[in-house]
Amino acid sequence: MAFWGIEIKPGEPYVHQYDDEKGRLHLSQATLGSGKSKEKAVVVCNVSDKKPIYLCSLLPRKMETCSLNIEFEEYDEVTFSVEGPHSIHLSGFFYGEEPNSDGDDYES
Amino acid sequence: MAFWGIEIKPGEPYVHQYDDEKGRLHLSQATLGSGKSKEKAVVVCNVSDKKPIYLCSLLPRKMETCSLNIEFEEYDEVTFSVEGPHSIHLSGFFYGEEPNSDGDDYES
Amino acid sequence: MAFWGIEIKPGEPYVHQYDDEKGRLHLSQATLGSGKSKEKAVVVCNVSDKKPIYLCSLLPRKMETCSLNIEFEEYDEVTFSVEGPHSIHLSGFFYGEEPNSDGDDYES
Amino acid sequence: MAFWGIEIKPGEPYVHQYDDEKGRLHLSQATLGSGKSKEKAVVVCNVSDKKPIYLCSLLPRKMETCSLNIEFEEYDEVTFSVEGPHSIHLSGFFYGEEPNSDGDDYES
Amino acid sequence: MAFWGIEIKPGEPYVHQYDDEKGRLHLSQATLGSGKSKEKAVVVCNVSDKKPIYLCSLLPRKMETCSLNIEFEEYDEVTFSVEGPHSIHLSGFFYGEEPNSDGDDYES
Repeated sequence: MAFWGIEIKPGEPYVHQYDDEKGRLHLSQATLGSGKSKEKAVVVCNVSDKKPIYLCSLLPRKMETCSLNIEFEEYDEVTFSVEGPHSIHLSGFFYGEEPNSDGDDYES
Repeated sequence: MAFWGIEIKPGEPYVHQYDDEKGRLHLSQATLGSGKSKEKAVVVCNVSDKKPIYLCSLLPRKMETCSLNIEFEEYDEVTFSVEGPHSIHLSGFFYGEEPNSDGDDYES
Repeated sequence: MAFWGIEIKPGEPYVHQYDDEKGRLHLSQATLGSGKSKEKAVVVCNVSDKKPIYLCSLLPRKMETCSLNIEFEEYDEVTFSVEGPHSIHLSGFFYGEEPNSDGDDYES
Repeated sequence: MAFWGIEIKPGEPYVHQYDDEKGRLHLSQATLGSGKSKEKAVVVCNVSDKKPIYLCSLLPRKMETCSLNIEFEEYDEVTFSVEGPHSIHLSGFFYGEEPNSDGDDYES
Repeated sequence: MAFWGIEIKPGEPYVHQYDDEKGRLHLSQATLGSGKSKEKAVVVCNVSDKKPIYLCSLLPRKMETCSLNIEFEEYDEVTFSVEGPHSIHLSGFFYGEEPNSDGDDYES
């Protein structure tokens, strides 16, 4: 289990690629980062060619943080981006390697 | 485990049908989508012939996202709809096939 | 695992009785239902002869939904009621029968 | 698993003592109780001789309930008290006896 | 499993060092502590040489507490600090020793 955290800035999407060694990603929390505007900021998630989905929407001076409980174990790319004039910090953790893929077996 | 996300629009209910391969659905988060009104938007859930149940109620500019922690493993249809003038994005994940229903056994 | 949802109306308490087949009840979410008042509405829980406990308090136009994470496996009756001029929708799920009480064994 | 709930009143701390039969305590939710003031109310936790820790802070008419996810399995006393002019209801559940202390041994 | 709680004061970061005996740390809740300002206070997390990540942002008189669900099992130092004019109380628990590192085996 290892801590994971990123800051997503407007116009700079973050691409998460599954990594066997790190394992499944648990997304736990979103928190508003830098930005002076009072406009809301939204975390958007794109998985391969599916439609973009809003994961959360944060409101400056009203609700600047929220819990999430979403897990990613896709082999496709997952892209996180922010809509709105703030950066957003995402945090969570990797579960680490699965017990049944620890090298004892001849799995490819 | 695979990411799941949909956008439910007013007047366009979404029907979820259980799928053995995808497995149990964990509904994790609801987030307000597009819409200019300040009126609240409610996620309503219908399972077969039971009475409709409100899963959450989101308020523009006040509380635009909330965590859920509801799991669906029904063989009956589950219908999600929205009451109010906004779309709502739902996100979560499928647990994948159950270990004891993986085809090794002669289960019916 | 099966979805569970009820609407509790003012003056109409709901009695939950444990059922072996349905199993443990996980209470996941409370959401404000119908009602025009701006007064708060509180979910109250009574287990047998213990003192009533407030499980959550919802505020119209401010905080109309909240997550819960409470489990009931009592053989005593559990009564949910609402204090205030709104109905409240509760949702969650049953875990289903316990593996070690599935009838294969001669348990009493 | 058994429901647990208490109301903590200002000036009347509640002492929780671990009990093997009831097992680990999961603290799930805090909800504002009676009191007319608009001042905030804070749940404070004291474990043996460590410094008091605020578990949550509730605001009348703004945020009257919150989820917690804290577990207690201490053999030392745990004291819950409230700072502020409201009572606070805490709810959660006991996990029950651990499987490895289920009667294999000659426990009394 | 053992309760964990600290108060982080502005300008006084807290360093968490992994301890085999205590095990993995589950961070459950953040609550605003002392301070008169209405400015927000942010919990910042630094893991070794990675960029600082905001874990949550609390707003006096609006949202003074929030749930977290982050776990730390790093062998690197984890530093928690607060940005803003309030102290913040963090609470959670240690999972205790892992079953497979209990000294029965000759693991290195």
